[in-house]
Amino acid sequence: MTIATPPALPTFDDVLAAERRLDGHAHCTPVLRSRTADAEFGAELFFKCENFQRMGAFKFRGAFNALARFSDAQRRAGVVAFSSGNHAQAVALAAQILGMPATIVMPQDAPTAKLAATRGYGGQVVLYDRYRDDREAIGRELAERHGLTLIPPYDHADVIAGQGTAALELIDEVGPLDALFVCVGGGGLLAGSALAMRARSPQGKVYGVEPEAGNDGQQAFRSGAIVRIDTPKTIADGAQTQQLGVIPFAIIRRDVTDMLTVSDAQLVDAMRFFAERMKMVVEPTGGLGFAATRAMKADLRRQRVGVIISGGNVDMARFCALVTGDV
Amino acid sequence: MTIATPPALPTFDDVLAAERRLDGHAHCTPVLRSRTADAEFGAELFFKCENFQRMGAFKFRGAFNALARFSDAQRRAGVVAFSSGNHAQAVALAAQILGMPATIVMPQDAPTAKLAATRGYGGQVVLYDRYRDDREAIGRELAERHGLTLIPPYDHADVIAGQGTAALELIDEVGPLDALFVCVGGGGLLAGSALAMRARSPQGKVYGVEPEAGNDGQQAFRSGAIVRIDTPKTIADGAQTQQLGVIPFAIIRRDVTDMLTVSDAQLVDAMRFFAERMKMVVEPTGGLGFAATRAMKADLRRQRVGVIISGGNVDMARFCALVTGDV
Repeated sequence: MTIATPPALPTFDDVLAAERRLDGHAHCTPVLRSRTADAEFGAELFFKCENFQRMGAFKFRGAFNALARFSDAQRRAGVVAFSSGNHAQAVALAAQILGMPATIVMPQDAPTAKLAATRGYGGQVVLYDRYRDDREAIGRELAERHGLTLIPPYDHADVIAGQGTAALELIDEVGPLDALFVCVGGGGLLAGSALAMRARSPQGKVYGVEPEAGNDGQQAFRSGAIVRIDTPKTIADGAQTQQLGVIPFAIIRRDVTDMLTVSDAQLVDAMRFFAERMKMVVEPTGGLGFAATRAMKADLRRQRVGVIISGGNVDMARFCALVTGDV
Repeated sequence: MTIATPPALPTFDDVLAAERRLDGHAHCTPVLRSRTADAEFGAELFFKCENFQRMGAFKFRGAFNALARFSDAQRRAGVVAFSSGNHAQAVALAAQILGMPATIVMPQDAPTAKLAATRGYGGQVVLYDRYRDDREAIGRELAERHGLTLIPPYDHADVIAGQGTAALELIDEVGPLDALFVCVGGGGLLAGSALAMRARSPQGKVYGVEPEAGNDGQQAFRSGAIVRIDTPKTIADGAQTQQLGVIPFAIIRRDVTDMLTVSDAQLVDAMRFFAERMKMVVEPTGGLGFAATRAMKADLRRQRVGVIISGGNVDMARFCALVTGDV
């Protein structure tokens, strides 16, 4: 009989180590304030703007941290990842910076802009048919045949530690927070952020925010076991995951205060606020945190509230259709 | 016979004093980088993002600096300004912060959003008919009848000194620049920026950038005397001035390297770059500086180039029509 070994969870020390590795490679993104939001809430809001991160999303942090820890042999062989979203570009860019080959498994029907961006960062794209092929099997086969190291988008200790550096920078810049709101897909950003909050702002609450249509994380948090759902129908394409990762979930259970949900209409309102009042392009998933704060405004009075804006990678036609209500 | 006294020009010391006055009131806006732009140029570009300034534009700096210097008697009576654009909101907000009444003379047909924003900052709006009334006469009459102090949008030493703090912050944050690109309407921002550059980065070139359709500044710079033109037809509504101010022109003649122009199509390209690659909402006037750098890219190789983004106050429907090419 084999007893399953629980996966090693990353710690706050790993987040600190990731911060050192990222120094000079990731942007230390600005924290923006909005007097309008502060007045609306009667609180102090601090927006950590990962839409201004390299390749337009926090994902660069985790990918770079993971790849920077490769051995020489791993670097020579290279990395493989499967993703139709920001993780693909993050791995391709991190590999380019570190001088290693990257193979990215992407769906044939991925947006042309995303395919072009991934190739632009030097990634070798392998296409698959999302209705016929199993991308994980393709990824594993490439990894085994060519000795590539597979880096998953969130279920990986080094990826989580890297994502945690955004919240760490935020708290180190503005001081302890009473609450932090973080969007959730597979849970990597939330888990990393929770590690940073527990160490640097231990009294503060940490909230994960999902789209209403895909609340697998909320269900898992409440039931105590990972819940798998069908791919949710939501405009928050970065949160269309079917379940939390095993490692993120172990941290989220332990360190997160609660899991919240918001509707697509609330996301659009948040995107419009960012565009009109804060002059920022934020992708739908990036609006999750702020949308949740607005829904519980009354509970946040006089508090110091952090909000992580995850990214800004949204096609302009799509962005405009959403913010001008022309959908 | 009276000999006209030349107006007293603000100096770099006035910019330093303005910076102290603005401390804690204006945002020290972030300087953003773009690896894509750097690679395209083979240079280092530094974007000073005044679209993230309070009320969405650099104008807050000049207005606040001017109002902060009022005597007690002036404060009690209050300020008057005429503007259909960012200066109106800047004066209203600065007056609100400093606890003095503000009267803003605005055209009847000003965008509802701008009227609402000005009133939202506590400004008392006096409407006029732009086809029938003379707004300057209305402003002067209000000033005389009620003892108000008139603050013009650019032809004022304290306004210019305040606007210069944006370039000062930029240079103090990133170090000396080889070139700085600044948009030009009445010339207040350019004149203030030139004062900062001459003191902090004396070897660097300073370029003013106007819309092609309204190159009164370029004509004035080349002929040596202020040139007045008809209101130019351009999407850069913040640069639809008919002539440079007298005080800005005296500084611009002395301290600016050259005056450049760009087309509306180049402005739209710049806005699209900011939105897609840098995730920012920038108003058409705010694209002038970057549009000009792209037109003289070859001359900027290996240089350290500053670009001031003046503001982000553009209606979302208009913004989207421009960046998605649907005009």
